Amino acid sequence: MVLARMTWPDVDAADRDAAVLIPVGSLEQHGPHLPLFTDSILVTGVAEAVERRLPDRVLLTPTLWMGASSHHLEFPGTLDNPFDAMIGQLTGAVESLARHGFHRFYVLNGHGGNADPIGIAMRTLKARHPNLSLGYSGYYQFCAEQVADLLEGPYKIIRHACEAETSLMLHLKPEWVRFERAVDDGLAPNPPLRGGLFFFHEQTVDGVLGHATLATAEKGRRIFEAAVEGVTAELAAFAHGVALEG
Amino acid sequence: MVLARMTWPDVDAADRDAAVLIPVGSLEQHGPHLPLFTDSILVTGVAEAVERRLPDRVLLTPTLWMGASSHHLEFPGTLDNPFDAMIGQLTGAVESLARHGFHRFYVLNGHGGNADPIGIAMRTLKARHPNLSLGYSGYYQFCAEQVADLLEGPYKIIRHACEAETSLMLHLKPEWVRFERAVDDGLAPNPPLRGGLFFFHEQTVDGVLGHATLATAEKGRRIFEAAVEGVTAELAAFAHGVALEG
Amino acid sequence: MVLARMTWPDVDAADRDAAVLIPVGSLEQHGPHLPLFTDSILVTGVAEAVERRLPDRVLLTPTLWMGASSHHLEFPGTLDNPFDAMIGQLTGAVESLARHGFHRFYVLNGHGGNADPIGIAMRTLKARHPNLSLGYSGYYQFCAEQVADLLEGPYKIIRHACEAETSLMLHLKPEWVRFERAVDDGLAPNPPLRGGLFFFHEQTVDGVLGHATLATAEKGRRIFEAAVEGVTAELAAFAHGVALEG
Amino acid sequence: MVLARMTWPDVDAADRDAAVLIPVGSLEQHGPHLPLFTDSILVTGVAEAVERRLPDRVLLTPTLWMGASSHHLEFPGTLDNPFDAMIGQLTGAVESLARHGFHRFYVLNGHGGNADPIGIAMRTLKARHPNLSLGYSGYYQFCAEQVADLLEGPYKIIRHACEAETSLMLHLKPEWVRFERAVDDGLAPNPPLRGGLFFFHEQTVDGVLGHATLATAEKGRRIFEAAVEGVTAELAAFAHGVALEG
Amino acid sequence: MVLARMTWPDVDAADRDAAVLIPVGSLEQHGPHLPLFTDSILVTGVAEAVERRLPDRVLLTPTLWMGASSHHLEFPGTLDNPFDAMIGQLTGAVESLARHGFHRFYVLNGHGGNADPIGIAMRTLKARHPNLSLGYSGYYQFCAEQVADLLEGPYKIIRHACEAETSLMLHLKPEWVRFERAVDDGLAPNPPLRGGLFFFHEQTVDGVLGHATLATAEKGRRIFEAAVEGVTAELAAFAHGVALEG
Amino acid sequence: MVLARMTWPDVDAADRDAAVLIPVGSLEQHGPHLPLFTDSILVTGVAEAVERRLPDRVLLTPTLWMGASSHHLEFPGTLDNPFDAMIGQLTGAVESLARHGFHRFYVLNGHGGNADPIGIAMRTLKARHPNLSLGYSGYYQFCAEQVADLLEGPYKIIRHACEAETSLMLHLKPEWVRFERAVDDGLAPNPPLRGGLFFFHEQTVDGVLGHATLATAEKGRRIFEAAVEGVTAELAAFAHGVALEG
Repeated sequence: MVLARMTWPDVDAADRDAAVLIPVGSLEQHGPHLPLFTDSILVTGVAEAVERRLPDRVLLTPTLWMGASSHHLEFPGTLDNPFDAMIGQLTGAVESLARHGFHRFYVLNGHGGNADPIGIAMRTLKARHPNLSLGYSGYYQFCAEQVADLLEGPYKIIRHACEAETSLMLHLKPEWVRFERAVDDGLAPNPPLRGGLFFFHEQTVDGVLGHATLATAEKGRRIFEAAVEGVTAELAAFAHGVALEG
Repeated sequence: MVLARMTWPDVDAADRDAAVLIPVGSLEQHGPHLPLFTDSILVTGVAEAVERRLPDRVLLTPTLWMGASSHHLEFPGTLDNPFDAMIGQLTGAVESLARHGFHRFYVLNGHGGNADPIGIAMRTLKARHPNLSLGYSGYYQFCAEQVADLLEGPYKIIRHACEAETSLMLHLKPEWVRFERAVDDGLAPNPPLRGGLFFFHEQTVDGVLGHATLATAEKGRRIFEAAVEGVTAELAAFAHGVALEG
Repeated sequence: MVLARMTWPDVDAADRDAAVLIPVGSLEQHGPHLPLFTDSILVTGVAEAVERRLPDRVLLTPTLWMGASSHHLEFPGTLDNPFDAMIGQLTGAVESLARHGFHRFYVLNGHGGNADPIGIAMRTLKARHPNLSLGYSGYYQFCAEQVADLLEGPYKIIRHACEAETSLMLHLKPEWVRFERAVDDGLAPNPPLRGGLFFFHEQTVDGVLGHATLATAEKGRRIFEAAVEGVTAELAAFAHGVALEG
Repeated sequence: MVLARMTWPDVDAADRDAAVLIPVGSLEQHGPHLPLFTDSILVTGVAEAVERRLPDRVLLTPTLWMGASSHHLEFPGTLDNPFDAMIGQLTGAVESLARHGFHRFYVLNGHGGNADPIGIAMRTLKARHPNLSLGYSGYYQFCAEQVADLLEGPYKIIRHACEAETSLMLHLKPEWVRFERAVDDGLAPNPPLRGGLFFFHEQTVDGVLGHATLATAEKGRRIFEAAVEGVTAELAAFAHGVALEG
Repeated sequence: MVLARMTWPDVDAADRDAAVLIPVGSLEQHGPHLPLFTDSILVTGVAEAVERRLPDRVLLTPTLWMGASSHHLEFPGTLDNPFDAMIGQLTGAVESLARHGFHRFYVLNGHGGNADPIGIAMRTLKARHPNLSLGYSGYYQFCAEQVADLLEGPYKIIRHACEAETSLMLHLKPEWVRFERAVDDGLAPNPPLRGGLFFFHEQTVDGVLGHATLATAEKGRRIFEAAVEGVTAELAAFAHGVALEG
Repeated sequence: MVLARMTWPDVDAADRDAAVLIPVGSLEQHGPHLPLFTDSILVTGVAEAVERRLPDRVLLTPTLWMGASSHHLEFPGTLDNPFDAMIGQLTGAVESLARHGFHRFYVLNGHGGNADPIGIAMRTLKARHPNLSLGYSGYYQFCAEQVADLLEGPYKIIRHACEAETSLMLHLKPEWVRFERAVDDGLAPNPPLRGGLFFFHEQTVDGVLGHATLATAEKGRRIFEAAVEGVTAELAAFAHGVALEG
């Protein structure tokens, strides 16, 4: 079920046990070759594919596309959603639907920088409404194994505007990729700090963290499919109530 | 210029005198026949058409689709963006771009219920950054004359899920309209109060305020074109700096 | 009923169906000839006259005189009530009385710049307390026709420190008017922008928006009476419950 | 100087070394015999008398009459200004005038319950604007000796709606006092707790804390004059800059 | 009962009528001779002694050591807990335990600068949870008489890093005192202002307000014992419910 | 350097390049056998040991012991620091010292539930003060390998009140452990959800997540030493400025 195109009587008739799926993205620099909307495009692509596989069990909202991106603000074009505003939107979205009896909400994240405010929003909601079933995760946590297998560069994880994200964009939205501008960047060995907080202009020249030049659409297709499969399984379990009641 | 598909070097190369155009919509009940996303679809449609006419002078952001809709919350499916969150998003979006030198921002509103928080956000920004040029208006304020001419029902203005909005949707997104379900609703003569605050379930049976059944795609086309023309003229003047400097 | 001079047992004995009337003003520049308290004087004058006509149906609070005036801050003497503080005061006033059973609240506004925060306060209250009857409006919206008839200058509406407001002050509080200093100001034809946000120092030299020199006490008397009559009718209807129950 | 009746050019011409005097009151229950506005009437009376004695050195604002009164809310008619709103108003008032060069601000309090939020507002302002000279006190702290001398009842301090406050009202606004309803209340010996927090309905039957029946206009006159004299001396010193610079 | 070392079943078995004792301190400059933690050490010392005397009636939490210290920030090392954060902590601590049935809470303050935010926190809690019994006071208010008797210097009260506080530290934690560095400071006669707000760098050279050089461990012992005795009596009364029910 | 026992001249003389180390703990249920203060004891123990190894390069603050523990609130004794309050304290602590030139701040976390608010606090600080060097991590992330090697139970990570935490307490504070009450709990195989949000009473019977009965002091000693060694290396690198400047 796709909330945006439903009418209110459609929603009124919907199964209250369905899992409300809320994608969260960003509009932030993704190097010289990927569009600002990359994270939003990717998480929306995954979420829509999941909804198509579970049309009766999933109620998909539009993507909250404005993410927490202060660490990218030195690069023009980045929009930063203040933490409080992002938390307010998420709690507002959940509470709006909860008043009509929906009780399963899953936030699918497409941008690592959103993790803290999503965590606070969801824990706040859980404390306030103990009977809600809540879940949240990045789509990228469902394809880590495939990413590790597929990537050719030395980093075997999804970083930023990197081999993996560029591949995903080449698969999902190639007409928005300027692959000829792709660079390998942010390659310096990690500083000997586990917990240092660096903004992107401190770590990279062009905003890329990884080997974007190694990207291919085929890698993107396989990562995407793995992510969709993983999130579909997660949502299927969640929508069946395995989580809290199983 | 369409921000979502640009890269950061594209934005870095963009004319700082361009008018940043920020559409704001809603996801809220629009009667039994129109989708929840109606306001967002309409304001996005107008904004995109304006950008296409002024591609060098306008920098279009994605639509902030989650609006202030507490007055519709009794109808399932409505998502209400809390006032503070909406104000935070708007100020965040403007301040993110202002730090890179953009100085003209125009919020195009597609939902009357957003007027208060938009006003507070823009006045807060102006007080904090006196050198910014700021503007905001509903797209519907640029086609009032044509609406008055075209509508056949007794109400000669855009109300809600009404003859005008249904016509616009029949023009812009007919495949999302279930015209067979359209009703005339909220027709009671206004109560003898100028300033009463009513939520929609207090005024209507089905969430419609007007004569949806009188809508036609042709009326929608003509209202839409008038709105696009009016907003284009506004943005052209704004982007030329007529406003503050002329 | 005048809340300020009542004792708590008086309030305890009062009719809970009475309309609580809350005037909201400002303390802000009104040109070289009108006192900073102009808006508060005018709205208080109207509100007190209305209470005298409906002594049993209206419970009048003191005027919340500190308004949202950031757009006048460049002129010395203006006090700006931050939006959040103003919203907090209004919701606090209503909720204080609502806990004792009053359920009809009407905010009478005397300053256009207050409209956004009043709107947010009232909608927040309505969402939180659905059983309250709430209304709000500017007193100036009840005398628009008479203003259009009476004014001799080219602008046929109440603007700021203008022909209309000066006339009202000449009627209500002539000893605080320095009519010899009155000027015509802010006369530039509107810029070709419908939605531009301008602060007063950007639009005027002396803080006047209109033809103050054309003001007379007689015009003021007639505008005032029209406003009182209109607001009285509104409050009478509101206090009879016509609004929500009729 | 009385801010409310000045024009902005008057303020522009005013001595920036003047002490801005901000009275803060309340609208809260004061027993069966005193009006809800008692604190506001008293503090305004003192402040106006002080301004009349120091017309060139003091710039008097209108009284912020809505105080922090949650401890009286059980008695109908009481309006409680939420702490945050009250802090916001005070900081807003000071910062509005500080931007035009005024730098000495004194809050004169008429209601003990306001002490905490006033303290937080002033300390916040001082931390934010170290060059401001700030002061605050209750008017009642300037007449403690006279109160102790004059009162006949066992309590030798100003409590609430008591011998002292009733006397002050009999002096300043006798037509608003219903002396025949005055009672002695809240007379129970203090519980053996120094730091217990009690709301007024827990301590009194009728909202009076003391011996209201012993009040006389003459006592009121003498307390009032002592307060005016004390506050005048304080403001004279403050406006001469004795405080920070002397 | 000492909360920190209890397990949750211990708390579950505890008497719900016990008084929860919450010490609040500071980490702020205390002159050249006393450690930054002085207030926290002193209030903790008193609170622990009280708990040892009333082990069954008092449930002692760890000390909230970060106080409201903006007035000391000019001296390096001072940590200032923002007012809102401090209020949030206090309300959070009380509400966490109140949900399990504890209903008597007493905040023991060790730093005068905390009085405003503690007051707001406690009044907010009382308004929100009318059935809670709440109390708060500085430990120093229970030994005022002994302090007046014992001190040799001209000031007969506890001021800051002074004869009294230094004596207390010499008694409680002599190994953290550098008595050889003690100075007499802040000795200027009070300016002729009752309500002036001064930060410590405006009043003192070294951060001391009083005659630190007159301190002795013996004075400290006697002040400490008086404080413990006074607070013990207060808590004993509070925990017996004398306050609200007696 | 230990901030609590320093005087302000000591801090004034301190090396501004030192790393300020801020431990953050919790007071929350840790099963039937560990005290509520467990997390605070452990993180304080590690932090103090690190300071002893780097006394000139590290400036240690007291432990912010009140953590974000809403997920444990169903167990009595848990105190939950609201997210906003915790964020406010952390930013307040850093900004207090930053105004005197300290520019390297490292938050050492002892409770997983604090990760979100710490992240938000640090990112907010970095955005506001770009020149600060900031770092944060859990102490437990520096001994993951040793934990994996040492634990005998099936879970090879630090969970909650588990084999690892109990061992650490047996090493650091055995007199506060009631080992005879230790249980194995929360052993159900993970539900088939990667992103489910569960509070502790939904996952455990007694608040333990793991095999507490397998704990030994010797395991605790080795885990502790590994953590101290890892954090010492981190802080040494951080304090040498390797992070941002190396």
